[in-house]
Amino acid sequence: MTLDDSWFSEPYDVTGSAFSLKIKAKLHNEQSEFQHIEIYETETYGRLMVFDGCVMLTSLDNFIYHEMMTHTALQSHANPRDVLIIGGGDCGSLREVLKHDSVERCVQVDIDERVTRVTEKFFPELCDSNHDPRAELLFQDGIKYVADCAAEQFDVVIIDSTDPVGQAARLFSTEFYSDCQRITRSSGILVAQSESPLKQLALIKSMSANMKSAGYLNTHTFEFPQSCYPTGWWSCTLAGNNNDLKTIRTLDTSVPTKYYTTDSHRGGLTMRPFMQAAIDD
Amino acid sequence: MTLDDSWFSEPYDVTGSAFSLKIKAKLHNEQSEFQHIEIYETETYGRLMVFDGCVMLTSLDNFIYHEMMTHTALQSHANPRDVLIIGGGDCGSLREVLKHDSVERCVQVDIDERVTRVTEKFFPELCDSNHDPRAELLFQDGIKYVADCAAEQFDVVIIDSTDPVGQAARLFSTEFYSDCQRITRSSGILVAQSESPLKQLALIKSMSANMKSAGYLNTHTFEFPQSCYPTGWWSCTLAGNNNDLKTIRTLDTSVPTKYYTTDSHRGGLTMRPFMQAAIDD
Repeated sequence: MTLDDSWFSEPYDVTGSAFSLKIKAKLHNEQSEFQHIEIYETETYGRLMVFDGCVMLTSLDNFIYHEMMTHTALQSHANPRDVLIIGGGDCGSLREVLKHDSVERCVQVDIDERVTRVTEKFFPELCDSNHDPRAELLFQDGIKYVADCAAEQFDVVIIDSTDPVGQAARLFSTEFYSDCQRITRSSGILVAQSESPLKQLALIKSMSANMKSAGYLNTHTFEFPQSCYPTGWWSCTLAGNNNDLKTIRTLDTSVPTKYYTTDSHRGGLTMRPFMQAAIDD
Repeated sequence: MTLDDSWFSEPYDVTGSAFSLKIKAKLHNEQSEFQHIEIYETETYGRLMVFDGCVMLTSLDNFIYHEMMTHTALQSHANPRDVLIIGGGDCGSLREVLKHDSVERCVQVDIDERVTRVTEKFFPELCDSNHDPRAELLFQDGIKYVADCAAEQFDVVIIDSTDPVGQAARLFSTEFYSDCQRITRSSGILVAQSESPLKQLALIKSMSANMKSAGYLNTHTFEFPQSCYPTGWWSCTLAGNNNDLKTIRTLDTSVPTKYYTTDSHRGGLTMRPFMQAAIDD
């Protein structure tokens, strides 16, 4: 059976799979300075955001990715006060970070201001916290930002990036991780989105190796379903700077979540055997 | 972008999404007495089995489904000796069940013998245990089997069914669950595949209600990624007959797994908040 153009389809060479959503309408189409941004209204997943043909998020399932990236990192830190997000222009990670009362400042550095402006219009629920006085939205090159940043400014650094192709590939390099390590305090944590555990374990392994080359002592990968991403399964990799990543604070009940739980976080400290085997290999 | 016929695509109305795999070759095509069975060689997921246009399994990711259905149920039971599988003709669940030394007998009842014969040819790795002396493969109507079965014969009943449409819909009914309850011993466990937690929470809720109407005291739903199924995310629902489903044995190291771990099982005892909310609603 073929899929016609009543569907938005993202075939992904790396996985040999494609994910498609039935479309009601195309709401927005724009070539920004950095990428082609499209917004669709889907039949069943709410709204869909696409950059350069790649699904970025849908209304229906983005909560999983955003909660896992942020809470897994923040709950592994004893007292996260200063948080940096590289990328993340859709502001969903920012919203989750600012649910934590301990956070005094969250700097978000995305190169493309148009992502945030388009999100404000089409996904206003993700932008709830954009005007929180603790939020600082910068639109500039994140790699340059961390290179220029003074040492030991942050407790948690979140790399909420696109796939490791083109410019974004540098966000997976030892050099970039070294800068992240330098600007993080001694008990600091790095977390980066790390693609599909089903088809990209070699990448996850190399990210982990690069993080260790950059000076991080421990790394750990968490996996979670993410329907709209290739293979429907995604991961984030944490790196700890004098932090064993095994000590988890219980999530405060004042931080509402739909997916993340302290118990699942604890359960995920034992990596899935096939992932552990591939990373140890 | 449209997907042409170099892809196998399964659009699924219930979820408004489609999953597609790049195809190398079609290996088998057969109309059995019960369904249309197709086997493909894919570019990246190994082999693909399709019934009536619906993806049943791939070589790459079936381990997750089979491990979660079986080990979650067996590890919730103090001493599972007699196990019944309804459906499951691909023998993947049977293989996992027979990894447990405590199991003395595993009866598999699938209506369509052709499924098992085709699996033996194209997925021999799933059929490793078909000739285990503890395995009993029956090819008949599972609903009739449980209706005719004497009381208290089994410790664990596994409903490894297709979607709740056509004949398989009866496998989700109170009447069928009542028979399962009757043929299960006092500490017995039922587990059934329960579709997508992202888009089918109403079904999961009704399954859980039907299980309770059938006399089961406790139910609990576990979720797991399943790349090749609609939304890439799947679930199984357990029902306990005087079993609180919270007491988990530690998986014996002699039972090798690639996905299931005792720690993740324990973590899953706290249901994802959005799932719990929908089921409590």
